[in-house]
Order: sequence, then structure tokens, then C-alpha cells
Amino acid sequence: MALSPAVALTRELLRCPSVTPADAGALGVLERTLAAAGFVCRRKTFSAPGTPDIDNLFAKIGTGKPHLVFAGHTDVVPPGDIARWRFDPFSGEIADGKIYGRGASDMKGGIAAFVAAALDYVARHGAPKGAISLLITGDEEGPSINGTAKLLDWAKGQGEIFDHCIVGEPTNVNALGDMMKIGRRGSLNGVVVAQGRQGHVAYPERAHNPVPAIARIAAALASCRLDDGTAHFSPSNLEVTSIDVGNPAVNVIPARARASFNIRFNDLWTPETLQARIRELALAAAGATAIELEFAPCNARAFLTEPGAFTELVAKAVEKIAGRRPELSTSGGTSDARFIVRDCEVLEFGLLNETIHAVDENASLADIDALTAIYGLVLQNYFEAP
Amino acid sequence: MALSPAVALTRELLRCPSVTPADAGALGVLERTLAAAGFVCRRKTFSAPGTPDIDNLFAKIGTGKPHLVFAGHTDVVPPGDIARWRFDPFSGEIADGKIYGRGASDMKGGIAAFVAAALDYVARHGAPKGAISLLITGDEEGPSINGTAKLLDWAKGQGEIFDHCIVGEPTNVNALGDMMKIGRRGSLNGVVVAQGRQGHVAYPERAHNPVPAIARIAAALASCRLDDGTAHFSPSNLEVTSIDVGNPAVNVIPARARASFNIRFNDLWTPETLQARIRELALAAAGATAIELEFAPCNARAFLTEPGAFTELVAKAVEKIAGRRPELSTSGGTSDARFIVRDCEVLEFGLLNETIHAVDENASLADIDALTAIYGLVLQNYFEAP
Repeated sequence: MALSPAVALTRELLRCPSVTPADAGALGVLERTLAAAGFVCRRKTFSAPGTPDIDNLFAKIGTGKPHLVFAGHTDVVPPGDIARWRFDPFSGEIADGKIYGRGASDMKGGIAAFVAAALDYVARHGAPKGAISLLITGDEEGPSINGTAKLLDWAKGQGEIFDHCIVGEPTNVNALGDMMKIGRRGSLNGVVVAQGRQGHVAYPERAHNPVPAIARIAAALASCRLDDGTAHFSPSNLEVTSIDVGNPAVNVIPARARASFNIRFNDLWTPETLQARIRELALAAAGATAIELEFAPCNARAFLTEPGAFTELVAKAVEKIAGRRPELSTSGGTSDARFIVRDCEVLEFGLLNETIHAVDENASLADIDALTAIYGLVLQNYFEAP
Repeated sequence: MALSPAVALTRELLRCPSVTPADAGALGVLERTLAAAGFVCRRKTFSAPGTPDIDNLFAKIGTGKPHLVFAGHTDVVPPGDIARWRFDPFSGEIADGKIYGRGASDMKGGIAAFVAAALDYVARHGAPKGAISLLITGDEEGPSINGTAKLLDWAKGQGEIFDHCIVGEPTNVNALGDMMKIGRRGSLNGVVVAQGRQGHVAYPERAHNPVPAIARIAAALASCRLDDGTAHFSPSNLEVTSIDVGNPAVNVIPARARASFNIRFNDLWTPETLQARIRELALAAAGATAIELEFAPCNARAFLTEPGAFTELVAKAVEKIAGRRPELSTSGGTSDARFIVRDCEVLEFGLLNETIHAVDENASLADIDALTAIYGLVLQNYFEAP
């Protein structure tokens, strides 16, 4: 069976076991493919103390405005127990109209679809009236320190100005075309420590047990209603992810108790206003117990691309090819779109997210081809306005 | 300087490093001393799966009623960092009117005082009109499985019937004579586990976080007022000693959360009524989260020896020698008295507890001699009623 260019490229990418931080040749596959079609390709390796070096790719064809950029990542999460997979997760096996492998939907299939669409556009039109770029990182599933954020900074240093961006993350829930992301909630991690005084359980008056305070704080944070949601966002949500005391002695009152939490927040909050609110709630629940509250640096603020001409252009292409109008959503986790939104309008649209990060991750061949057609129609309408 | 018999015997015992479960010759010292004065001595070693074998001593002089038994333990807690001690903790060094060493107050000094008092009594009166026994174990600071409880069962199997018991635990807080224990609170350990469903923090609707439930349960248990105390007992008290989730991933909702607690309870409760009350409180706080509640086997019920002729006899002897009337208390931790109270009236009186389990544990030589005089007066008045 002859494979479509997008499916063939997906398979080639799946055969590179590019579990973060390994590249395993994946960027080279893209570089060769794009360079052969006239894209100017630059590879950039970024480093930071305590993190592995990461390889990235910037590819561009055309110049000037408008400048449409596609962002994606070739790195994948680990396959877990390989014995539980139907096929080798790095073989790109095709069966029952689907291609299997770690990264099939998240997001090698999406990258392959865009590359195939761009190559087809260039073959038919030559270089666009404006520019098409690809920002491809190998550090989206990892700490995201040596990836998109640095590649964007580098590109801006080179004078690149982006007008619009499509991130190829798998956004659809049940069928291709059912969801496009126009923003994401922010994410904030915090830790609260309650300080007490150790002692024997038989003499509680000589000790100060920090466990009741941490329990009250955890219960208060878990039950607080931060807001009621906004036009495009669901209510902000806090999850207490761990409480740890680590006291193995049944007759000892411990000196210290610790709780960790994560907040997914909407556009009513900045990390700063949210930290102040959490501090208020924690102090009120702590009572007479001394607490320390610390937040991890927040690299995921809430962001939104207001629905408008660009989201409408993409939504119409989706509707024409997939037969359904995508919901404009801000649900789910964070993505590299949070870095790109600082520089231009960004939306996310790709394959289905049903099997991502799971055993037997796969993508339908028909969906990969339909996504290629959608991206192709977007390029057509973006550069050749009717 | 000539040492009193009680101090000399204290020093001999301190020189045996009898950290539980080691005997290190301590019981042999007592056996030789008591046998030389006409006591019939029996050594009993008890075993149980998973615990070390423990040596115990039963010594008796006289027959019939009344039968007064002294209970004590020669095992000691570990000395900790020996470098922090003023003297070798197993040398029985004497300085500034005090004898130093692990077990000086808890409770080799108390045992030596009773042995010296009993030997003096027998030397002056011959065997008592009735019987004097000593139940000495090497397993009070350890699991307390192969010690007093089994020695009592064995003695009863031999036909022994006890009328009254003095446990030589260090009961005094600030000065010899200020406190006698006439009971102890019970102790109950429990663990509650909340069961949830693991998931990603960005999709809380697909998971069930057990942390809020464990936090609510811990807060509810920690703040519950079980009772208001009774005539001789303070209010029962619950301490949540640990909460453990052990989830290191900031973006994962954990599947399981666990809390441990200890209750020190008074004579309003049995372990059974208390377990039922805790179950009620935990279930109410758990809400829709499934929980499992387990209690450790309770080997420390609350007990009380009602003040009466026996407590008054001992209190009067204390007052006469020490110059202060002892408070009749039920405070503090558990002791082997909880086993003995099943068979006879029991009270506890010994040295000061100020330095027990601490670096530089010591006992005042004057206190050891005064305690010897108190025990002597108790024997006198017990067997030779005026």
C-alpha cells in the first residue's frame, strides 16, 4: 500500500526513539525533508545548568509579512512497559487503518501533516507571499527550559517577527475537528510547611503538633472556590497533590508537616494575585501554627487568543475538511503555546488526544491525511485570501 | 565514701549495659542479692515469633496473705550519643551527690531501693507474715511482649495470688514525693487510608483526589473533644502523628492518602467504644471518599486503682519520709502497671522522672536513700499494722 507523504513522514519520525531529552535523529528527518523543498534550516542546541542539552530546529521559507509559524515538538514521553504494547512503540507499525507508536498523536503525526501540507503548498505556489516557519523543539515533554522559549528568543534576536502561530498539539477529543484551543489555563505549584515542636504523644502540652494545621490548610485550599470561570475559561481549580510528615513513630508528635498543591487558573488571575489569595487562605487556616509558604517559579500564566479573524480562518478550514465546527476551548494542561502567545496570536489544532501518553498510542491514517488537508487549506487561505 | 546498700546496688546494676533486649547480667545481680537473703528466685525466659527472647526474674519470700509484690524492669533505653554524656552511661559514676547512668532513675535506682528495703525488713523481722515478691522484667522499654504480662501468667499458673503491687517507675516530677500514679490512660493507635483514583491535575474530573478527605478527617479527629475528663483522669486526647501521601509529581493527583493517630484515653472509654466513636467521626469527615480504618491491637486499656487503704498507706509513708503528700495522678505514658491491675490493686511510686530517657540520666543519692526508707516504712506498716 502506498502511504501518503504525511503518513510516511509520521512513520519515519516514529522510528526515532526520541524520548526527552533524546533526539534520536528526529530533527534530522525534518531538516532533510524541509531543506530539500527550499526551507532554510537552522539547528540550535540550548543548555542550562542541571538540565540536559536540547536540540531544536528553526526552518523558514519566504520573507516578510504575513509570517505564519507552526510550532511543535519531536520529543515524546517514555513508552512505559513495552511488553504491554501491541507493537514496538518505536516501529511505526500500521494496522486497521492506524499508525501505532509513541508520539503518533502527540505530536509527530501533527508535525508530519504540517510539513506535508507546507511542501505541497510550496510545490504548487512557490515561496509564499510572506513566510512560513517551523519552530520544532525536543524539550516539550521535559522541563521545557531549553526548548521553545529559548528558540523564540533566538529567532527574535535574528529579527524574526511572527504574526500568527498554529501549535500542532493533539486537541481533538472524540473526532478530528471537534476542538481547537485558543488559550490555556496557567499552572502554579506551591508548598506549605507547618512548623511545630516535637514531643511525646502522652505529653501534648509540652509539644506543638503541626499536623492539625496542615490538615486544616489542605482542607481549606482543596475546598476553596477561587472563581466561577470566565467567558472562555472554566473555574480555576486547586488540587492538593501530597501531604507528607514522614513520622514512623506512633508515640511521637512530629515537628514538621508539608503539603504540596497545584493550581490551574484562568485569566482572572496572575500568579501574583493568586499567590496573595492562597497566602490569605493558608494563614487563616493555620491559626496559631507557624507556616512557610513557597511557590515554584511560574512559567505558565493563563493566556487567551481572543476569537477573531485568525481563529475563524482556521475554524472554517477545519469545518470544510472535517465536517464539524471546532469548539474554541481553553481546557487541558499547559503547552508551549504559553511561550509563543507573548509574540503573536496563537491557537492549537492537531490530531486526537485519546491515546496520548498511553500504551498503544496511535493515530488514524485518515485523520493524518485530513489534518494535512486542513493545514493545506489554512495555508491557502492565509496567503491567497480569496 | 561508704555507699548505702541501695546506692551500691544501683551502681552494680548501672554497670550492666542492659539496653532492651540485653540483660547484661542485671537480673543475675538481683538474683544473687535476693537469694542470699532467703528469697526463692526463679528465672523465666519467654519467647515469641519476631521478638527477641527475654529473661525475667520472680523472687519471693514468705507465704500466704497478704502478698505484696514489687514490679520493675532492669532493661533501659539506649544511651544515644555517648559522647554527649558527662560520664560513660554504664559506669555508675557518682558526682555532686548524684549517681549517673542510663537507668539511674528509670528504674534501676528504684529497684535497688526496694531490694535494700526488703533485705533490711527481712534482716530485722525475718520472713513477713504473708509474702513479699519481686516481678522483674527485661522487656518494659521494648515491645513488652515477653515480659511482665507473661511473667504474671506464669506466676498465676504457679498458684501465686497477689494482693497489692507497687511499680517502681519514676513518678515524681520536681521533688521526691510529689506524685504517685494510681492509674494510667489507655493508648490506642490507628491508621486511616483514603482511597481515590489517580489522574492528571489538569483533568480533575477524570480522577478522585483522596487528599482533601484525609485532610478533613485529620482535622476532624485532631479537633474532636472526646470527653471532659473524669475524677482522676484528664480529658482523653488524640494526636494525628503523621499524614503520608508520598506523591512527588506536582502534576499528578494521587490514588491514596494515609493518616496515623494515637489516642490517650481515660476510664470513660474502652478500646471498643473508642474505635466506634473514631469510625463515626472519620466516616462523617470522609464524605464521598472511600476510607479504610484500622486499629492496632490495644494492649493498654485505661485503668485506675481507686484511692483507698492501700494508696493511703503508701501516701502516708511518702509524706512521713519525704515531707510532702503525693498527688494521686493518672498522667503520662503507659507502664507495666496496666498488666498487673488485672490481678490486684496497683500503684506506682519511685524516683524523679526529670532526666529519664535523656543524656546524663541520674538520681540523687539522697533520693535513693529516702525512697529506700519510704519502701521500708511501707513494708513495716503493710505487714506490722500498728
